[in-house]
Amino acid sequence: MSKDIFFDRVTVLGVGLIGASFSLALKKHGLCGHICGFGRKESNLIVARERGIIDSFYLDPSRAVAGSGLVVLCLPVGLFLETATAIKSSLMADAVVTDVGSVKGRLVSRLEEILSDRAFFVGGHPIAGSEKSGIGTADPDLFRGRRCIVTETGNTRSAALKLVVDLWRSIGALVEKMDPQEHDRVFGAVSHLPHVIAYEMINTIDEIDSSYLEYAGRGLADVTRIASSSPELWRDICILNRENLVRFIDAFIGRLQRVREDVSSGEADRLEGEFTKAKALRDGIGQD
Amino acid sequence: MSKDIFFDRVTVLGVGLIGASFSLALKKHGLCGHICGFGRKESNLIVARERGIIDSFYLDPSRAVAGSGLVVLCLPVGLFLETATAIKSSLMADAVVTDVGSVKGRLVSRLEEILSDRAFFVGGHPIAGSEKSGIGTADPDLFRGRRCIVTETGNTRSAALKLVVDLWRSIGALVEKMDPQEHDRVFGAVSHLPHVIAYEMINTIDEIDSSYLEYAGRGLADVTRIASSSPELWRDICILNRENLVRFIDAFIGRLQRVREDVSSGEADRLEGEFTKAKALRDGIGQD
Repeated sequence: MSKDIFFDRVTVLGVGLIGASFSLALKKHGLCGHICGFGRKESNLIVARERGIIDSFYLDPSRAVAGSGLVVLCLPVGLFLETATAIKSSLMADAVVTDVGSVKGRLVSRLEEILSDRAFFVGGHPIAGSEKSGIGTADPDLFRGRRCIVTETGNTRSAALKLVVDLWRSIGALVEKMDPQEHDRVFGAVSHLPHVIAYEMINTIDEIDSSYLEYAGRGLADVTRIASSSPELWRDICILNRENLVRFIDAFIGRLQRVREDVSSGEADRLEGEFTKAKALRDGIGQD
Repeated sequence: MSKDIFFDRVTVLGVGLIGASFSLALKKHGLCGHICGFGRKESNLIVARERGIIDSFYLDPSRAVAGSGLVVLCLPVGLFLETATAIKSSLMADAVVTDVGSVKGRLVSRLEEILSDRAFFVGGHPIAGSEKSGIGTADPDLFRGRRCIVTETGNTRSAALKLVVDLWRSIGALVEKMDPQEHDRVFGAVSHLPHVIAYEMINTIDEIDSSYLEYAGRGLADVTRIASSSPELWRDICILNRENLVRFIDAFIGRLQRVREDVSSGEADRLEGEFTKAKALRDGIGQD
């Protein structure tokens, strides 16, 4: 399968943990010739080039994409639309543009609209994020054995879809196709909501008494690890997926209010029932 | 310091992860002769004896404590009062009774009242819990380098306090004295609240769509790891610390409601401010 794929030139827009790991994976699996990077920090791009993650770079995205058959958006999702607008007239005709963003939904439709004159857009989302960011922990095997969602819409060109799917499979990901709206419901629930909760759990303890954080044990460290994630990135994700996220925050608040009443009135059996149900579901997730 | 401490006979009431680890630590450091266990499951006690964690056991706590100079309550906290009542007339005169429970507050006052005729009670809480339970992962070094809170009240006998402090230090814990009420505020915020949140986060995702849990990544696995903790234990902890917990759940809901409004109205700067503050605080916790 992977033997059929080869790009002479690929552009990675945003050379952070995911962009750099993707570049290293392409190189490791011999899927491309030259990789050109774009990013907002020249110092980071220089280091990426020194380490062989990228082969060249530009500080102007429209110059970076010229001549590339594959362009991958690895910037924070809040920058996707302006970047797509900036690059569209410089794209090689029939280039495939994909992304690694944590939000799909309407963002996919808008990227399709912006890019459709010149290129084929197919959305992607590798489930391999981390609270860590930056190229320091980039890893060519980051996506191996991890799920990667690839979105399919009524506008998706099937050849481009197949190419993006094969590309992720070639670097070890377990590809699953999903509708962009469904993607945002699923990841709004299992990823975006937990991030908001983790951030606000820390801020709540700080509000109660900031000195208490000193007593954090391993439990709190685990629960709040994702609160070390990039504020800029998560600000954008929350706003781009706002309809789902607001609905899910409301559902969560509703459950918390019921548990609060059970705690307050000492409803031992109901509390144990809640916790037992959650434990059984959590034990089923695995990943320890 | 540890050379001064030696108990001919110790009773451990509740031989789970903490009770078994404590027993192994006492033996490893030569702090006791015979360890007698009590527990609710005979099969577990038989295994504990076979593995040399305890030397003997009874299924009746009042028989288990007879002749022991040190008695350690390692049962779920919800059983402390009835167990203390059951053992009090069988305690050796001037025995020291301590515990490892996650709740202190009024529970300490009540244990002091129940036991004061015969013995000296000093509350303890090693910060070494885990979502795991049972003797399978018992470890004599579980408390090494971990904080252990020891409570001091107006009724605490100073010799008993010193003994409990020295005992924990001898097995490697970093002892900190704290008022029982303050203990419950601190751990209500950094431990009890996060447990409730983790349980309800899982239940909320299940409520939204139970099939979504299949898409859990490492972030959700971390955030909800403590939802694998014992429902019985956490039911009791929540109810015993209900006043603080209700107040903290309310504070958390208040913050979530404000964030919900910011998400809904696309208040990017405010969201980024919230997340940035949380990230800075979380990064300060360490423990990764």
